[in-house]
Amino acid sequence: MSTFGTLFRVTTYGESHCASVGCIVDGVPPGLRLTDADIQVQLSRRRPGQSNLTTPRDEKDLVRLQSGIEHGVTLGTPIGLLVQNQDQRPHDYSETDFYPRPSHADWTYLQKYGIKASSGGGRSSARETIGRVAAGAIAEKYLKEAHGVEIVAFVSSVGKIHIPTTPPTPPSNGDEDEDAATDVFTPEYLHLLKTITREIVDKDLTRCPHAETAEKMTQRIIRAKESHDSIGGTVTCVIRNVPSGLGEPVFDKLEAHLAHAMLSIPATKAFEVGSGFKGTEVPGSRHNDAFIAREGGAGGLATTTNWSGGIQGGISNGQDIYFKVGFKSPATISKEQATAQYDGTPGTLAARGRHDPCVVPRAVPIVEAMAALVLMDQLFIQNSRVAAATLLPRVNTLPPSMVLPPRTPAPEQ
Amino acid sequence: MSTFGTLFRVTTYGESHCASVGCIVDGVPPGLRLTDADIQVQLSRRRPGQSNLTTPRDEKDLVRLQSGIEHGVTLGTPIGLLVQNQDQRPHDYSETDFYPRPSHADWTYLQKYGIKASSGGGRSSARETIGRVAAGAIAEKYLKEAHGVEIVAFVSSVGKIHIPTTPPTPPSNGDEDEDAATDVFTPEYLHLLKTITREIVDKDLTRCPHAETAEKMTQRIIRAKESHDSIGGTVTCVIRNVPSGLGEPVFDKLEAHLAHAMLSIPATKAFEVGSGFKGTEVPGSRHNDAFIAREGGAGGLATTTNWSGGIQGGISNGQDIYFKVGFKSPATISKEQATAQYDGTPGTLAARGRHDPCVVPRAVPIVEAMAALVLMDQLFIQNSRVAAATLLPRVNTLPPSMVLPPRTPAPEQ
Amino acid sequence: MSTFGTLFRVTTYGESHCASVGCIVDGVPPGLRLTDADIQVQLSRRRPGQSNLTTPRDEKDLVRLQSGIEHGVTLGTPIGLLVQNQDQRPHDYSETDFYPRPSHADWTYLQKYGIKASSGGGRSSARETIGRVAAGAIAEKYLKEAHGVEIVAFVSSVGKIHIPTTPPTPPSNGDEDEDAATDVFTPEYLHLLKTITREIVDKDLTRCPHAETAEKMTQRIIRAKESHDSIGGTVTCVIRNVPSGLGEPVFDKLEAHLAHAMLSIPATKAFEVGSGFKGTEVPGSRHNDAFIAREGGAGGLATTTNWSGGIQGGISNGQDIYFKVGFKSPATISKEQATAQYDGTPGTLAARGRHDPCVVPRAVPIVEAMAALVLMDQLFIQNSRVAAATLLPRVNTLPPSMVLPPRTPAPEQ
Amino acid sequence: MSTFGTLFRVTTYGESHCASVGCIVDGVPPGLRLTDADIQVQLSRRRPGQSNLTTPRDEKDLVRLQSGIEHGVTLGTPIGLLVQNQDQRPHDYSETDFYPRPSHADWTYLQKYGIKASSGGGRSSARETIGRVAAGAIAEKYLKEAHGVEIVAFVSSVGKIHIPTTPPTPPSNGDEDEDAATDVFTPEYLHLLKTITREIVDKDLTRCPHAETAEKMTQRIIRAKESHDSIGGTVTCVIRNVPSGLGEPVFDKLEAHLAHAMLSIPATKAFEVGSGFKGTEVPGSRHNDAFIAREGGAGGLATTTNWSGGIQGGISNGQDIYFKVGFKSPATISKEQATAQYDGTPGTLAARGRHDPCVVPRAVPIVEAMAALVLMDQLFIQNSRVAAATLLPRVNTLPPSMVLPPRTPAPEQ
Repeated sequence: MSTFGTLFRVTTYGESHCASVGCIVDGVPPGLRLTDADIQVQLSRRRPGQSNLTTPRDEKDLVRLQSGIEHGVTLGTPIGLLVQNQDQRPHDYSETDFYPRPSHADWTYLQKYGIKASSGGGRSSARETIGRVAAGAIAEKYLKEAHGVEIVAFVSSVGKIHIPTTPPTPPSNGDEDEDAATDVFTPEYLHLLKTITREIVDKDLTRCPHAETAEKMTQRIIRAKESHDSIGGTVTCVIRNVPSGLGEPVFDKLEAHLAHAMLSIPATKAFEVGSGFKGTEVPGSRHNDAFIAREGGAGGLATTTNWSGGIQGGISNGQDIYFKVGFKSPATISKEQATAQYDGTPGTLAARGRHDPCVVPRAVPIVEAMAALVLMDQLFIQNSRVAAATLLPRVNTLPPSMVLPPRTPAPEQ
Repeated sequence: MSTFGTLFRVTTYGESHCASVGCIVDGVPPGLRLTDADIQVQLSRRRPGQSNLTTPRDEKDLVRLQSGIEHGVTLGTPIGLLVQNQDQRPHDYSETDFYPRPSHADWTYLQKYGIKASSGGGRSSARETIGRVAAGAIAEKYLKEAHGVEIVAFVSSVGKIHIPTTPPTPPSNGDEDEDAATDVFTPEYLHLLKTITREIVDKDLTRCPHAETAEKMTQRIIRAKESHDSIGGTVTCVIRNVPSGLGEPVFDKLEAHLAHAMLSIPATKAFEVGSGFKGTEVPGSRHNDAFIAREGGAGGLATTTNWSGGIQGGISNGQDIYFKVGFKSPATISKEQATAQYDGTPGTLAARGRHDPCVVPRAVPIVEAMAALVLMDQLFIQNSRVAAATLLPRVNTLPPSMVLPPRTPAPEQ
Repeated sequence: MSTFGTLFRVTTYGESHCASVGCIVDGVPPGLRLTDADIQVQLSRRRPGQSNLTTPRDEKDLVRLQSGIEHGVTLGTPIGLLVQNQDQRPHDYSETDFYPRPSHADWTYLQKYGIKASSGGGRSSARETIGRVAAGAIAEKYLKEAHGVEIVAFVSSVGKIHIPTTPPTPPSNGDEDEDAATDVFTPEYLHLLKTITREIVDKDLTRCPHAETAEKMTQRIIRAKESHDSIGGTVTCVIRNVPSGLGEPVFDKLEAHLAHAMLSIPATKAFEVGSGFKGTEVPGSRHNDAFIAREGGAGGLATTTNWSGGIQGGISNGQDIYFKVGFKSPATISKEQATAQYDGTPGTLAARGRHDPCVVPRAVPIVEAMAALVLMDQLFIQNSRVAAATLLPRVNTLPPSMVLPPRTPAPEQ
Repeated sequence: MSTFGTLFRVTTYGESHCASVGCIVDGVPPGLRLTDADIQVQLSRRRPGQSNLTTPRDEKDLVRLQSGIEHGVTLGTPIGLLVQNQDQRPHDYSETDFYPRPSHADWTYLQKYGIKASSGGGRSSARETIGRVAAGAIAEKYLKEAHGVEIVAFVSSVGKIHIPTTPPTPPSNGDEDEDAATDVFTPEYLHLLKTITREIVDKDLTRCPHAETAEKMTQRIIRAKESHDSIGGTVTCVIRNVPSGLGEPVFDKLEAHLAHAMLSIPATKAFEVGSGFKGTEVPGSRHNDAFIAREGGAGGLATTTNWSGGIQGGISNGQDIYFKVGFKSPATISKEQATAQYDGTPGTLAARGRHDPCVVPRAVPIVEAMAALVLMDQLFIQNSRVAAATLLPRVNTLPPSMVLPPRTPAPEQ
């Protein structure tokens, strides 16, 4: 369905060529200062036509808030919002339309519904992500104000061009031994995760914060564009100042919800958190994040390393959360492809129109939005538990050294 | 929470050392022949003590069906089932217990709840997966009987030992050009995905179907065990004969639910479907799966390649679904680790007891179970739509070549 | 939250004085012919200013469909729709605003959110029901086309003026004996339930189909209006041609969902289905609905009476469903009331503006809409089960006389 | 499905003659002292065989807690629990079984599932309520400890024997005028609602706290029993010390959830809250509950009357919540009934076995349990909102007299 979240919940609507796309955001805390501008800033980072690296369509994507706010402050009731589509007419069919685009949703939508929108991606259009970004901007505003949470995503690869992350492989001893194990990430990359900001990310049109790599990425995207082809890439996201205790055991682990959220973004095919696939190669003795007393003397534990990516047992541990999302090369290309029509007739398709040769720069605010939606929902669920537990008389069945300090009633999280 | 699914739904309970672990499976179709043995077979593949590669605890894990079945046939009502724990006593605290295990759930559970089970993993124990496997076995039985669905998972890597999947990298032309692009997988590996069965998988204790690799994996696991350390790995899963049309647009894409399901399994950190992260490096013109008329003349389309992994636009296209899941090295090791106690006191921990040096062989049936749960739920949701649409008079706003043949009322899927 | 339904789901937004009110309807079957007019007709029956019996505000309430439809046919994707508010300005506070209206939501909203809309009912305004009515109209269209379902509600009482339903009480034998039991409804009333249509209902402005009673109701409402007071009433609803098998055992019984739906309508306080409270006084031997072979020889059972109101064990049995909903007298009256301000200062409130002296005539389409939403959702859930079960080989553990005829794959329902 | 609740959630399983009936309770706050006895006390009030007024089967219904508790304190993880069935064998069919019991679930279950349990009510058996009562007992324990909530239900009518509640009707002036309006309840009855306890309720086997009425009820039930017939009745429930602010606008109003919960109990057909159906006859000026400063000087408002039943705009206002539930006469009677077999053959059924002639005395703890489940879930949802809002800087767009005192971070509710 088109709903995401339990206590903080967004529901979206809209096709590529209908009257508008929009969403309803339910569960917004009352008393949050919120203006159109808070939302527009992320919508503008998402919209097409920002540079010659993305699709040249210039849609204004101006958001119109409908409800749930008065005098610039949220009421706690659902916020309806919409963005009008510029091109609202279903178009006439041409021969191109008789071909389902390979690796696109054209054919599977027809299989699912038995009917489909006449043009564009219909509901599978990237315009669908407008609702996500708008809702995410509201969540982010709250998370920042209440908990100082910072969410920053950036482009970590385009095609084979990767931001440098991994230490050089030491000389092999020939038997793939763990003795040759290296850490998954270099200290430089870990420092980047600690310090990166959206301002830094937006300095380059690729949204890659490593200048040398960004330059290569630009060339790579231009090459894809000029050859009427496309290229994929990855987006990495870091979340700082996450309260500990978020995420629910078993089916609702925090990384499970993050993976769900990210793989619901169009064109995504892969997700890894913390050390990810690479970390599966590192022995436990080296991969485990040792505990250490938290600085400041207020009690609590930190970890000396953070290969876990801020999540242990499915629950946030207060360290930075970071993860990487893989986006396939866009399916819609104007290069000719040998394929078949809906009825099986073989032929050649060269898609009309202008399309993103590479989606990852524009995907950055979408990844941030989905991360915010997940955190917000899990925060509210944990808030409820803490509030309930706080009212009970403290029982102590644990050894003294395990007992947490009394919870201040307001979950400082 | 401890519930997974909308129309086919499992709810689980149980800690490592309580009376029993179990689950309630709701939404089972009425009229399905089902016996204890259908469930036990997968529970036995999951249970510890199967070989010297896994934990030597020998728990019987005998399932006891409580409800929802009469005369060996399901009634359509919830099936309650449980497996008794052998060791039901919370134990006395020893010094070891004053240390939260690094990268384990000990500390985050305490942060979340303010209290925790006195020993073992509590709710984070791998015994929690018994309910998943039992529910998955029921789903599998239905999927196989009604649609011929085959779900087979296997171990694709242990540490740095990987089953061969990728073609050799061609000589670089120095500019990371797509001209040097190769396919993501070799024809041999794609053939393995097409043909692998559980019988083949179970031939080796590692559950790796490639004999040479399996032998190396065995050595690697034994080395981890002997050094009181642990090692991670990956499990790959293929699903064949999946009906097309499963998965819902936007937030409930099929790969989003698969990712959610897989990353809810303990110790998982990464997920990729189809060509995955590697596929992000392949240009669209080479990565797109071209369409071709389906064999047999009954209409419909197949694809000539399957880099999409059987899912396009979040919806199954009838091709094989395959994905890979990364499991980190187990956190619990008896090797000494420098870390801190709950109260911040630094010290050294060597975990007591016997633990899996590598979880991936036992994770195979869990991955299969979670895949079955996702498919079943999405199938039921799509079933409902098809049934509803079938009763409407057919309208035809599409060009004739796009019109699907009339749906047989029973969704053949 | 502002979402209703599982597979057919409506999410609403909007306050009394924001930009617009609207909703997103998800789960609409693809291929349904649908125009603005299908929705507008029920919105117009709901809107204020229809007669001098209701509030004189004349809001046009023109619906604007945003998505999910192309060439007049639904795509299966979410339908966004909205109705613009005429008066969008939060107003200045006057002394009246310092009083929470007795028995209105003013004070509880402030308790809940710590903030509230400056004027009107905010989210508790009856304008909120526009989204329900619009979504209900879509559900109704499908239910009628696919199953011939007819949903008709009417006003059954205003204050103490009731449509005649009950047989005269026989002379008491003094000991409240069941021997004196009469049926709950007269044959004339049962006939009315069988035959009533919306055309008949709309003949009188009261929406009471019994002319003599309607005339008295009109006088009663006018009296309330002239005395600046208000009066409550009841709405009865009948649903004909309901497929059998709808509603889920235990927590999701059909009557439980109907009760939930009806008591979510503003100002409702009571619900009864079938013989309701009166039926609790009738012994089982007289209250039970005996079975009889269904006419037509196609097999299946009907009942000779229908005190159950078409639902047995929480599941529809194919007989007419009928129920009654109680609406309290509107809280907002311009008659002076001794009460207190938000800060406890005692004083006198006479509400400004013009308000419905009696809401039941306008509540009729809202009751119909909520009934349609419940049926649609339960139908889709049962559709899914039937589709799943149909694909299994038939097993027969029942005695032959209990075995149902083979399900035609398309659930005839 | 068999799940109830969002954040506090119970899932049940079990038929009348399977191995056991039970449930999983998820969302229990960690740190609650809980023993078997806390649950058993309500199960024992529910179980059959308590007196000669109920069914003579003597099932022990001993609860066995499986998980989620250690050293008598809840861990915050799911609590699994079960009660073994004494009679676990499906029986042989006799002629009686060829008749679906009139007004019972036999026929609709077969319509729904195409298969049914061979004997007893299967999933529609009253044994299904064991899980509800157990879960409700846990919720009650928390609500009492954390908020002092008191939930007391009692039998308010059996057949035509009603506890006195209503003032005598004044002489009619012939035109059904509101001038003749009386209050809905007598001061004596309102006092009973304020003061009733479970101890008082349990003094009589009928669970009616009005001795004279209880005596008549006893006679009435005995008469039903002796004539092999059955009789219905009503249960009234009052909830005291409810925090204000519970219940969500629009679809999740508190009375909507209470109605849903109550009409999910077997054999229920009617629900009214506060003044209910009777209140629809009272003009707004008389029915509105005027506000008054709350006693004690701590601020806040109370109401001088409570016709709303403690809920306004769908949200609790801190006054007592009270409602009434109608239970039809039990369908299973051993008196002969002219009806038809499953295949339509007409005949006569006299149900075997022994059955409750009247369910209302045993329904009392079930009503209490469902009320507790609703409150708990709504409390947790509101807890989450308050916790989130508390962390925002206070904004003040309201006139000073409307501003609530700063929320103490721990929602005192």
